[in-house]
Amino acid sequence: MPLHFTSEQRLDDGVLAREFTLGEIPGTLWTPESAPAPLILMAHNNGLPKAQPRLVARARYCAAYGFAVATIDAAGCGDRPRSAADEQARADLRRALRAGEPVDEIFESLVAPLVENAAPEWRTALDALLALPEIGGPVGYSGWTALGIRLAAVEPRIAAAGFFAGGYVPHAQREEARQVTIPLLFLLQWDDEGNPRQRALDLFDAFGTKEKTLHANLGGHTGTPWFEADDGNRFFGRHLM
Amino acid sequence: MPLHFTSEQRLDDGVLAREFTLGEIPGTLWTPESAPAPLILMAHNNGLPKAQPRLVARARYCAAYGFAVATIDAAGCGDRPRSAADEQARADLRRALRAGEPVDEIFESLVAPLVENAAPEWRTALDALLALPEIGGPVGYSGWTALGIRLAAVEPRIAAAGFFAGGYVPHAQREEARQVTIPLLFLLQWDDEGNPRQRALDLFDAFGTKEKTLHANLGGHTGTPWFEADDGNRFFGRHLM
Repeated sequence: MPLHFTSEQRLDDGVLAREFTLGEIPGTLWTPESAPAPLILMAHNNGLPKAQPRLVARARYCAAYGFAVATIDAAGCGDRPRSAADEQARADLRRALRAGEPVDEIFESLVAPLVENAAPEWRTALDALLALPEIGGPVGYSGWTALGIRLAAVEPRIAAAGFFAGGYVPHAQREEARQVTIPLLFLLQWDDEGNPRQRALDLFDAFGTKEKTLHANLGGHTGTPWFEADDGNRFFGRHLM
Repeated sequence: MPLHFTSEQRLDDGVLAREFTLGEIPGTLWTPESAPAPLILMAHNNGLPKAQPRLVARARYCAAYGFAVATIDAAGCGDRPRSAADEQARADLRRALRAGEPVDEIFESLVAPLVENAAPEWRTALDALLALPEIGGPVGYSGWTALGIRLAAVEPRIAAAGFFAGGYVPHAQREEARQVTIPLLFLLQWDDEGNPRQRALDLFDAFGTKEKTLHANLGGHTGTPWFEADDGNRFFGRHLM
């Protein structure tokens, strides 16, 4: 199944931003002026759409550095339709968080199926993206931890990954973490209100790879300092360029 | 009291390496080709001399990046004379480590006086170094955590610091950590055999500064990957250049 580009825009940093569809899957591809470029799959956490400004800014910065960057709204994610069960789980999660109640079971019931359904669509997108002449290998993954663990565990074309947060990860991915053997950069916010610190540290400890680096900065979930975008680019540069 | 240079060598990366004495204090100063340069004070842990190859390699790399880098063997450190009590404490520490016994009290009795005696000599060296025309402000500190906490707490000329390890730190410096308010890069090895991980993480948590970053890599005490030297240079570049 080929990508179908629906719009394109040349940005002031020379990056070409194109919207695409791939069957039902909407996506965005940012490519640098120099091609072919290594590809980075950039995934937000499940609740946010691919057009969310922080993801777009990160993707552009990464493309200006020399990577092709792609993101999709996978099944159940971003602006894609949600099932009634999914809407209910999200409502339960918000209520439990507000009330300070345990959220593990709700989180598991919400995120585990999202990962199961999203991962095959990301692999389909990867097939189509690698068929484009402006994209070369190897491939990196950046962002949503739970999805990235699944992809790193099952997708041999992914050569390096940067994960963010990781306090709540479904049971299956906590187990799969031991199977992840590619180089990792694990980024967390020390005071992330939605991601318990000790769980994130335990997850870092669990990854099977021998080449893993943890970066932690003071502050809440959205407080990651700008220089981590540079550090991420250099990490992928070491492993993909 | 002025520095007295005793030897100099132009290295192949353009860095000028000079040995000096300052009263009883022996030191080494590495300066880049461009001057004046910001100064970084680079201190090893207490048991190792300033000529130890890993410190020298790190200092040269940092100087080639554009910093003036200075180190000294402070009182009781490196090749300086040791008291009988100090020799006894070191012997006790080695024996306890081999036997897997608790080392906290021995460590406290060894390192607490070393920090007390070394810090004034580092401040004396800082006075003399800042009087040199090839050295400008501001000043960074890199290396031995316990000494760095003391210096960062009492020395307003130090504007940013990179600390390494930090599993065992004397009681006084664990308290002083809350007074440290300059930007910090805290580097640890995840499996450091001589520095308990949880204590290092607790120390990172305790620092008073709002701008602190933790970097952790898999492996033992001497296994820090080479790219952390680059990360350190960029950290100091952000704050000193």
